[in-house]
Amino acid sequence: MPLTFTVTKESKKTRARLGRIETVHGVIETPVFMPVGTQATVKTMTPHELEDLGAEIILSNTYHLYLRPGSDVVAEAGGLHQFMNWKRPILTDSGGFQVFSLGPLRTISEEGVKFRSHLDGSKHFISPEKSMEIQMDLGADIVMAFDECAPYPADRDYVQKSKDLTTRWAKRCQQAHKREDQSLFGIVQGGMFKDLRRESALELIDLDFPGYGIGGLSVGEPKEIMYEVLEDLIPIMPTNKPRYLMGVGSPDCLVEGVLRGVDMFDCVWPTRLARHGMVITSKGNLTIRNLPFARDFTPIEEGCTCYTCQNFTRGYIRHLLKANEVLGIRLTTIHNIAFLMRLMGDIREAIASETLAEFSQDFLARFGGEK
Amino acid sequence: MPLTFTVTKESKKTRARLGRIETVHGVIETPVFMPVGTQATVKTMTPHELEDLGAEIILSNTYHLYLRPGSDVVAEAGGLHQFMNWKRPILTDSGGFQVFSLGPLRTISEEGVKFRSHLDGSKHFISPEKSMEIQMDLGADIVMAFDECAPYPADRDYVQKSKDLTTRWAKRCQQAHKREDQSLFGIVQGGMFKDLRRESALELIDLDFPGYGIGGLSVGEPKEIMYEVLEDLIPIMPTNKPRYLMGVGSPDCLVEGVLRGVDMFDCVWPTRLARHGMVITSKGNLTIRNLPFARDFTPIEEGCTCYTCQNFTRGYIRHLLKANEVLGIRLTTIHNIAFLMRLMGDIREAIASETLAEFSQDFLARFGGEK
Repeated sequence: MPLTFTVTKESKKTRARLGRIETVHGVIETPVFMPVGTQATVKTMTPHELEDLGAEIILSNTYHLYLRPGSDVVAEAGGLHQFMNWKRPILTDSGGFQVFSLGPLRTISEEGVKFRSHLDGSKHFISPEKSMEIQMDLGADIVMAFDECAPYPADRDYVQKSKDLTTRWAKRCQQAHKREDQSLFGIVQGGMFKDLRRESALELIDLDFPGYGIGGLSVGEPKEIMYEVLEDLIPIMPTNKPRYLMGVGSPDCLVEGVLRGVDMFDCVWPTRLARHGMVITSKGNLTIRNLPFARDFTPIEEGCTCYTCQNFTRGYIRHLLKANEVLGIRLTTIHNIAFLMRLMGDIREAIASETLAEFSQDFLARFGGEK
Repeated sequence: MPLTFTVTKESKKTRARLGRIETVHGVIETPVFMPVGTQATVKTMTPHELEDLGAEIILSNTYHLYLRPGSDVVAEAGGLHQFMNWKRPILTDSGGFQVFSLGPLRTISEEGVKFRSHLDGSKHFISPEKSMEIQMDLGADIVMAFDECAPYPADRDYVQKSKDLTTRWAKRCQQAHKREDQSLFGIVQGGMFKDLRRESALELIDLDFPGYGIGGLSVGEPKEIMYEVLEDLIPIMPTNKPRYLMGVGSPDCLVEGVLRGVDMFDCVWPTRLARHGMVITSKGNLTIRNLPFARDFTPIEEGCTCYTCQNFTRGYIRHLLKANEVLGIRLTTIHNIAFLMRLMGDIREAIASETLAEFSQDFLARFGGEK
């Protein structure tokens, strides 16, 4: 059974909506933020800690798992859910974005992408068909079409060709994908060119995917440009399919994305930030690693109910981070994920009670106000 | 209130005994293994995970905490228990062993030890009085006298002088130590010279400490020599005081130590081993990081009830370790600590049921049999 998606409420004042994605591994309430478990682990966390924080779905990376431990190993373990002991839904990306990020280590052709492993320099080739094969081995609930993600900035000609290739690859992915317990999402590309974005969307809608990723945003462009692209694009996207803004996860972008009709997000940002000694608070991000926190024996954020804030102080966490102790980045990661899970819960409540506009205004004013 | 120690059972066939140490932060059943939390954290673990594994006391290092975050910071946080949110008993070492391990970075005099920080090269001086001051700031339940730990091998003349100095320093520690909620243990030195060990013990017994560390063993000598020293030394030590064999923690040494009358142990070995991708099993240690485990989807040890073995496979853990994922060393650490906690529990049960000799023989045969 592939996924079913139900919009349970549409906001009257904004494009936001509440939804429910049902998969064989459980239900996801949208709008949702998906923590990223690149190498079959959300860095520093156990799957049970993620469950306790309310994560309903996580993302894992095809490129990384293909190289290590190998998708055959994961398949032999019984698939990714069993391999990592995560019982809830998983989404895998297509490997496209990671492969394109390799820069000089890769060459693109109509057929696919040749590249060298960032681990050992070994040669590999991923095509749309190969990406589907790997993702079928991994066994996630939602899999993504193999796309080309144009860089920013890029000229119109490049972006046009890249978008066209992405559409042709999307068709090949659809033909190659066979697992009935997985749902394959297409990915809208087209860079910052609104007309190309619309073309891309219409071409993919023709293929009738059960959900659509929006790729190639948050790749270096000003946030305002991303918001404008979303405002232009989302109104032509189907209302009965999930819309997934890929690689976006800072609190302000989550709020702005939901206001514009996005249902799903993922980003390494909150967990990466945590490993760099930074924590998210409702008043902005704090570099808790810094000296002023050495003798601060209050929690990261007063009133936060996460394990970290209920049990440890800024001073202790700062000490752990300075001393390169693993517990330090465990505690900041827990807090950052907890923050985003709570934010998404608050957003869903605000949509339900038709107070999202006020909530957003208030949240963005506080979050941006003090850094 | 300092600690009280009660021997609840003496083994008839061996020197082993069961005991109970009561402190203001709770009760410790002996023989006990103390996990080491060098920098106010048992590496990779939360205090709650340690509690769940049954750790009744942990050790933390004076030298490290003095340098970072500074014992004044810990004192300002309300002491080490509060700083790290560990509610059960803590033992701090004196800093002696770490300072002497600095080698060319330190010089010893009657007064104390001048040294340079391994972190930033800054100059410091620790005397017996200073060690007491720092340990009173840290606020552990059990604190250790500042001793000189002779290296191995060392000639008799050096060891004799070092032992004499340790006795004089023990007196100064006793005079300088003022906190009534802490218990100060003396440390028996004397290298591998049995007569010097006995002299050291008798001199310290004269000072009537509430417990005695046995330092300067497991410093490179063959295990048989350590066992011989213990066999000669322990019979002259008071029966009504805890005996703490410092820095010893491999499973075979724990069993052999208990058989010879040791009540307390600590060692970084099980946690350090875990971080190097090795796990302890009843059949010996496994380097789970190695290739043969890549497609092994069984637990580290069948029948082990620890979180790691109940939830994850060797193949997954091997993947995490190869990919340098923090969860890998978290899972191996949990298993290794769980193994030692269970071993100590089994040892205590075997003493209670007068089956320690058989238990030990069986355990040592299996543990040493297959590596």
